[in-house]
Amino acid sequence: MIFRQIYEEGLAQMSYFLGCPATGEALVVDPKRDIDTYLDLAQSLGLTITAVAETHIHADYLSGARELARATGATLYLSDEGDENWKYRGLEGFPHVLVKDGDEFKVGNIRVKVLHTPGHTPEHISFLVADGAVSEEPLLLLTGDFVFVGDVGRPDLLEEAAGFKGTAEPGARRMFQSLKAKFLTLPDHVQVWPGHGAGSACGKALGALPATTVGYERRHAWWAEYLERDDEEGFVKALLLGQPEAPTYFKEMKRLNRDGMPILGGIPHPARLTKSQFTKALAEGAILVDTRDKFAFAGGHLKGAINIPAGKNFSTWAGWLLPYDRPLVLMARPEEVEGLVRALIRIGLDHVVGYIPGLEGYAEGELETVPQITAEEAKALWEKGQALVLDVRGRDEYLSGHIPGALNLHAGRVLAHLDRLPKDRPLIVHCVGGDRSSTAISALLAHGFRNALNLTGGIRAWQALGFPVEKGEALVNA
Amino acid sequence: MIFRQIYEEGLAQMSYFLGCPATGEALVVDPKRDIDTYLDLAQSLGLTITAVAETHIHADYLSGARELARATGATLYLSDEGDENWKYRGLEGFPHVLVKDGDEFKVGNIRVKVLHTPGHTPEHISFLVADGAVSEEPLLLLTGDFVFVGDVGRPDLLEEAAGFKGTAEPGARRMFQSLKAKFLTLPDHVQVWPGHGAGSACGKALGALPATTVGYERRHAWWAEYLERDDEEGFVKALLLGQPEAPTYFKEMKRLNRDGMPILGGIPHPARLTKSQFTKALAEGAILVDTRDKFAFAGGHLKGAINIPAGKNFSTWAGWLLPYDRPLVLMARPEEVEGLVRALIRIGLDHVVGYIPGLEGYAEGELETVPQITAEEAKALWEKGQALVLDVRGRDEYLSGHIPGALNLHAGRVLAHLDRLPKDRPLIVHCVGGDRSSTAISALLAHGFRNALNLTGGIRAWQALGFPVEKGEALVNA
Amino acid sequence: MIFRQIYEEGLAQMSYFLGCPATGEALVVDPKRDIDTYLDLAQSLGLTITAVAETHIHADYLSGARELARATGATLYLSDEGDENWKYRGLEGFPHVLVKDGDEFKVGNIRVKVLHTPGHTPEHISFLVADGAVSEEPLLLLTGDFVFVGDVGRPDLLEEAAGFKGTAEPGARRMFQSLKAKFLTLPDHVQVWPGHGAGSACGKALGALPATTVGYERRHAWWAEYLERDDEEGFVKALLLGQPEAPTYFKEMKRLNRDGMPILGGIPHPARLTKSQFTKALAEGAILVDTRDKFAFAGGHLKGAINIPAGKNFSTWAGWLLPYDRPLVLMARPEEVEGLVRALIRIGLDHVVGYIPGLEGYAEGELETVPQITAEEAKALWEKGQALVLDVRGRDEYLSGHIPGALNLHAGRVLAHLDRLPKDRPLIVHCVGGDRSSTAISALLAHGFRNALNLTGGIRAWQALGFPVEKGEALVNA
Amino acid sequence: MIFRQIYEEGLAQMSYFLGCPATGEALVVDPKRDIDTYLDLAQSLGLTITAVAETHIHADYLSGARELARATGATLYLSDEGDENWKYRGLEGFPHVLVKDGDEFKVGNIRVKVLHTPGHTPEHISFLVADGAVSEEPLLLLTGDFVFVGDVGRPDLLEEAAGFKGTAEPGARRMFQSLKAKFLTLPDHVQVWPGHGAGSACGKALGALPATTVGYERRHAWWAEYLERDDEEGFVKALLLGQPEAPTYFKEMKRLNRDGMPILGGIPHPARLTKSQFTKALAEGAILVDTRDKFAFAGGHLKGAINIPAGKNFSTWAGWLLPYDRPLVLMARPEEVEGLVRALIRIGLDHVVGYIPGLEGYAEGELETVPQITAEEAKALWEKGQALVLDVRGRDEYLSGHIPGALNLHAGRVLAHLDRLPKDRPLIVHCVGGDRSSTAISALLAHGFRNALNLTGGIRAWQALGFPVEKGEALVNA
Repeated sequence: MIFRQIYEEGLAQMSYFLGCPATGEALVVDPKRDIDTYLDLAQSLGLTITAVAETHIHADYLSGARELARATGATLYLSDEGDENWKYRGLEGFPHVLVKDGDEFKVGNIRVKVLHTPGHTPEHISFLVADGAVSEEPLLLLTGDFVFVGDVGRPDLLEEAAGFKGTAEPGARRMFQSLKAKFLTLPDHVQVWPGHGAGSACGKALGALPATTVGYERRHAWWAEYLERDDEEGFVKALLLGQPEAPTYFKEMKRLNRDGMPILGGIPHPARLTKSQFTKALAEGAILVDTRDKFAFAGGHLKGAINIPAGKNFSTWAGWLLPYDRPLVLMARPEEVEGLVRALIRIGLDHVVGYIPGLEGYAEGELETVPQITAEEAKALWEKGQALVLDVRGRDEYLSGHIPGALNLHAGRVLAHLDRLPKDRPLIVHCVGGDRSSTAISALLAHGFRNALNLTGGIRAWQALGFPVEKGEALVNA
Repeated sequence: MIFRQIYEEGLAQMSYFLGCPATGEALVVDPKRDIDTYLDLAQSLGLTITAVAETHIHADYLSGARELARATGATLYLSDEGDENWKYRGLEGFPHVLVKDGDEFKVGNIRVKVLHTPGHTPEHISFLVADGAVSEEPLLLLTGDFVFVGDVGRPDLLEEAAGFKGTAEPGARRMFQSLKAKFLTLPDHVQVWPGHGAGSACGKALGALPATTVGYERRHAWWAEYLERDDEEGFVKALLLGQPEAPTYFKEMKRLNRDGMPILGGIPHPARLTKSQFTKALAEGAILVDTRDKFAFAGGHLKGAINIPAGKNFSTWAGWLLPYDRPLVLMARPEEVEGLVRALIRIGLDHVVGYIPGLEGYAEGELETVPQITAEEAKALWEKGQALVLDVRGRDEYLSGHIPGALNLHAGRVLAHLDRLPKDRPLIVHCVGGDRSSTAISALLAHGFRNALNLTGGIRAWQALGFPVEKGEALVNA
Repeated sequence: MIFRQIYEEGLAQMSYFLGCPATGEALVVDPKRDIDTYLDLAQSLGLTITAVAETHIHADYLSGARELARATGATLYLSDEGDENWKYRGLEGFPHVLVKDGDEFKVGNIRVKVLHTPGHTPEHISFLVADGAVSEEPLLLLTGDFVFVGDVGRPDLLEEAAGFKGTAEPGARRMFQSLKAKFLTLPDHVQVWPGHGAGSACGKALGALPATTVGYERRHAWWAEYLERDDEEGFVKALLLGQPEAPTYFKEMKRLNRDGMPILGGIPHPARLTKSQFTKALAEGAILVDTRDKFAFAGGHLKGAINIPAGKNFSTWAGWLLPYDRPLVLMARPEEVEGLVRALIRIGLDHVVGYIPGLEGYAEGELETVPQITAEEAKALWEKGQALVLDVRGRDEYLSGHIPGALNLHAGRVLAHLDRLPKDRPLIVHCVGGDRSSTAISALLAHGFRNALNLTGGIRAWQALGFPVEKGEALVNA
Repeated sequence: MIFRQIYEEGLAQMSYFLGCPATGEALVVDPKRDIDTYLDLAQSLGLTITAVAETHIHADYLSGARELARATGATLYLSDEGDENWKYRGLEGFPHVLVKDGDEFKVGNIRVKVLHTPGHTPEHISFLVADGAVSEEPLLLLTGDFVFVGDVGRPDLLEEAAGFKGTAEPGARRMFQSLKAKFLTLPDHVQVWPGHGAGSACGKALGALPATTVGYERRHAWWAEYLERDDEEGFVKALLLGQPEAPTYFKEMKRLNRDGMPILGGIPHPARLTKSQFTKALAEGAILVDTRDKFAFAGGHLKGAINIPAGKNFSTWAGWLLPYDRPLVLMARPEEVEGLVRALIRIGLDHVVGYIPGLEGYAEGELETVPQITAEEAKALWEKGQALVLDVRGRDEYLSGHIPGALNLHAGRVLAHLDRLPKDRPLIVHCVGGDRSSTAISALLAHGFRNALNLTGGIRAWQALGFPVEKGEALVNA
């Protein structure tokens, strides 16, 4: 058996390619939407992708399962568990098999057994794989968002992101049972290959290893002690505590992944826009996404631009801040455009209508800078109560120490809560390193908040001068 | 703990990067010689490489351990096991620690325990790693060429490649003991990350998975049954059977890895040669390595060129066929040169003095083609005994079915055995797909064998016509 | 005034970019169809393209004038000379000005005077340009296919390529008058920037300089002596002698350039095809264009492929050999695909449905080689009259010396004259360097001529052995 | 004859490649130092470079003549005119011919006549070229820095740049005589191909055309009227008026070009530095050249960095600001490094010891921003006399309108005149677009001027508010 983990760093997302050299068939599990990765891999290995499987209806990225099935004619293997709300739709025209707990299917000599492992979501399944060429006994478990390295999938994602009230605790209880009845009944030596690595918003304590084993998690995961003493209540409480903010675009992803998304048929190649084409695009409602780094953005940018720096978190921040119903124009170097477009289509932001390479052709006077404020100056305003401090870090970071009186609004949520922010006095915006504050300020500037100031050096510059910091509850945690 | 496997496809070689985010330190195990991979990784993760370790004195590639230590100032952790013949030399100027079975060292919170695991080589050690941030119990084992996925390291490599007579069987016995006393005493759930994947000449049945577990190998490896019934004799016999040909350059690698190799200080960038510079280089003894594919080589090539197509086996074939004491000129596309140079320096072929991009500027008449012979024509000559069939496949392939009377000489060994080949009658050269025969014929043509003919379609074309094939002993297996 | 010559090497075609820094406007003359070149240039210079002009209805490439006008909103300046057959059509929706001899227009401070200069075609105009910022006197003349460096445009192109019988001589006479009445009345110092450089099929003696002057041509062009002694008859005779073969696709180009061609809106990006997608494309009528070099093609290729090596003549050979009504698949390296697609759209071959990177995944047995024959073997067959020699060079080359009895059929015309070729005896195909014979043989093999053989080394190998050569009339010159 | 102009945009420098297809020989005139351009061109055209010529001892870039001669074995053709101060030295080991006015040499059928044309420099020669295949009469003149399109070479360069006092006026008189006795005696139709295009500091009114003719310049150049009425005095006065500032590195170039420069043997490839390597390089005296744009630099940069944005003027600004005796480290994207290194070696800045890709791994607090000041704030300080305005534009721009009281110091000269600048009050630095002020401020910050402020929007922002501007003499024009 050939086995490859494909790591998409931007979403800390892992998909899997399993091939049988004997029959030339291959299975892909949880593919991302830019599927050429799998097609190229199959071609280089001389294999044909005949099966595509999903562990669950993803919320954090747009699945490439249908795209890949359409390109290859492969059969889809999808969960038939969960209630009506969690049933796949729009599968007409795709060869597919709906599977339930205990079902098995083969791809060449690869044997795949379906385990229903709800918790993260009600319909979630895991795939227990045996290399039939060696043995019928299980070799590895593909866990999707069930078990991560050192953690388990969060059950509160949709309550948090999409307002499915009352689903978090039942999910946590299902997770307890799935661990108990499914995961812990497997032999210690079974390898565990999860759907996410460190950095995903799908869990809170994901380790930075590509894989783990049943035995190691049984002994060392944070949840092991609760399972060992069969303490469901303790487990539920611990699991629901301190999960990171869930991006608002997750709700949209979930819907599209269940009901069907547009088939791309290839990676789009947006054209470079001339100044007049760009002006026209803006007039027609396009948003300029300035993908330069925070320094370049601070030094000069076009009015109205949203600053989402190219980099490994580009997809996530784009999901937080960009609307799904507006065309997008990228400010990006030509050689970076393809990568950015891939990052956007992975979360369904398909409407990039073009790009411009930079600020060539614009005079300094046509541009806007990011106003800076030093910690000393900020302190003076803050002491006099003449400014509002806006802390755009995550809730957990805020709770562990913030400027007294500061409002907490995760940078990704600023746009959704503009009504809570004053326009009549300085808004001192900060995070830690300046990336999130740059993104947040770009959103504020684009919405007319001329009073936004970047606290240069962030909370650290404040702390370095011995200025006051307090712990405790957030004033706002939208 | 951050853990990354770096897979160098050309040598099916795996090195490992282990980082401790808490302290910013990182350890690299079994680095390849083009070390920018590790430097870049460390830089992107914000870590500093402070330790470099080797599992053993490698024979199949030139270690990058000293190169990396020189570039970073990291401490080398090297085996102090084995007799004098297996002691590292020339370590003056490199901070280093010589380790023995049972020793431990820490890199940040990463705890590494040394296990002496001889068999493949006498000084071989494995690294049992615990993520101190989680637990002191072992998480994974870095096995180098001790245990592979589904296989173990071959103990006969140096007897085979370098003429160290009488070392294969004792090695096999040591391997049995290492498995018994070290590997099988570990818990089932410990992950096993080896030094080679499928395709390496360091073992015979390497699986195409990146990792395995102690428990899975204990149950399903081919050798598990011998260990279970404590059958050392059976194990030794099975292990020594059917190992692939070992490249002759392995001997050189072993010596350099033990005693020290030139420090490169960066990847060389050979210049494009003008026609006159190229002519001069040839006059000064350079060998032209034609890296185009077999089709292009067959269609037309410069006299004297050795055909080693760019591709994933480039390093290995270069090691088989190219001398270490002659300058090399590559025929390669400019954008491929860097990759080829990397492949060459990985095995110590550092003397690339330039490249030419192709045959532009040469007339058809200045070129040589590869003479072809069809299976029908070959059969006619063969029946009359007017030609010698030279089968350049591996010994195992030959044994499983060959043209009666054919001489077997692995393509990589043709140059070492030219004296066994006639020049006075047709040499019908074949393999399966035509790659190896192209390489072998290029070597023959370069040495004046004007009588070499390529059997178009190889053994399959012969078989497809129902022509005779026999099994059994090789006439030559150099 | 900013002035740039844009040289498209594949068609030896020159377009011009003229900008006025004072007003920010720019004019493009005779644009190629991949217009991003001009858009990028304008953007980098901070200019806006407001005018696009054509010297005539081109026959050798698809004009980018409408494409560029559509992208920029620029005004088209097109000839209103010539009879109904030479009037532009389908200009609705394009701002345009039809111009006649003596008309003038301005683009910023650039003054352009229109000269009617028929000969190459009846409606042909030239543009006499003055840099208004310096002087109103003429600075340079953009001559299109009127006057080249050392030559003039051929008047026989459409008679030759498209069967417009009886147009060559009248055109030659018009050319004489245009030279006399227009060109030679200009001052010596006027720079002459033509529409083609050496290598174009639009003339026969084009020099390899980017430009010339009126004075130099007046003194040193081959035609100068005829004009000096007012010898129209001599000029006509000399002009019509020895023009190169005109590709058959010229007729199609002429029609599209007059009546309108599809607007692309950007450079297409064909996808890499999997083996099954490729097989499907072939089944649906696609033609495989093998763009590897002749050596690779000779060494092994897929049956049915047409060999048109990537290189500077790719457009021209594609125009000769590829049909306009069939989808195309390229065999090309990924990084070369864009350049090849550009070369194809420049002549209107827009239907590239995908590409495959090479022969990976195909066994030697699935492939076909190009059978070779040495000069000695060829001579033996030829002497016995057992083979037909097919000389695929140009008529002029043939006339200057060929193998006695050889049939002459320009490589580009082989497909149009398959009925003249026997299938029942060897066809010994040759040119000089082997490129054209490779292309011709690929076409023959694709059409079932299993009897085609490549004369290795071409005519030179034949001559080098002292074999007979004769001069004189061609047996066929289709 | 094949004739190509090679345009190096960064220095607005033109070199020439002339080839004779009949004999396969080629001549290169005024090569730049990265000579692979010519080697590649020769190779692609199937020619051998056998001759290399120079029009004069260049001051604005390091000649590639010796580099090219060394790589090819070509003969150097160099001026033997001028006094001892202008004689080439160190030519031992290079085949060379020293030529004087009236000498001729041939390269294949290309005939080259040497004209002594002093003025720009005393030893300056021009090459009158005939295409011997067509005629012995002159076809074109390669003028170097003698005649440009619309202008002539400046005679004051070395007085200006290198303090050769009293050389400007005699040079201007020599220029008058060269035009009169050499240029204007040529026929109108001779093409004129100069050594520089618009943007070079070697003249003041260079046109943006690649070439001109004797006849056009005779009629329309600014100097034509003086020559027509034989007004040497008027010509001299006009010529010396308003020449742009000459970079200080010109003196060094002149010396190296006369006496010999290091032979590179290929383009250097500096390595990416790790943070510790970078720190070490700085400690050893290296200067960090931050090649990001002004916006990124303003938003955040490492202390001590000099901001010279990658772009077409990179060479020139590097020449102005970087010392020749210090190692350099570039902050640049990996894919840009080669181009930047080329730009540097073209002016002899060979000591690039490495590069870092950007600010990854640095916290906001470790960085410095460029303090900004708005026009309103600047006005307030200026009115109170509390700040010094430093105008870093060229002298001509300053004279045509500046902020009253502003000091004028061309951005490239700031480093040479730090002693004229106060550290005890705000320095309001400005240019027009912000590029030059960014470079100047980076130099000031690196030398401890914590009082430097960038006037956002430059002089235009000032003028847009109706603030006072005056014309007249510069207070400083170093």
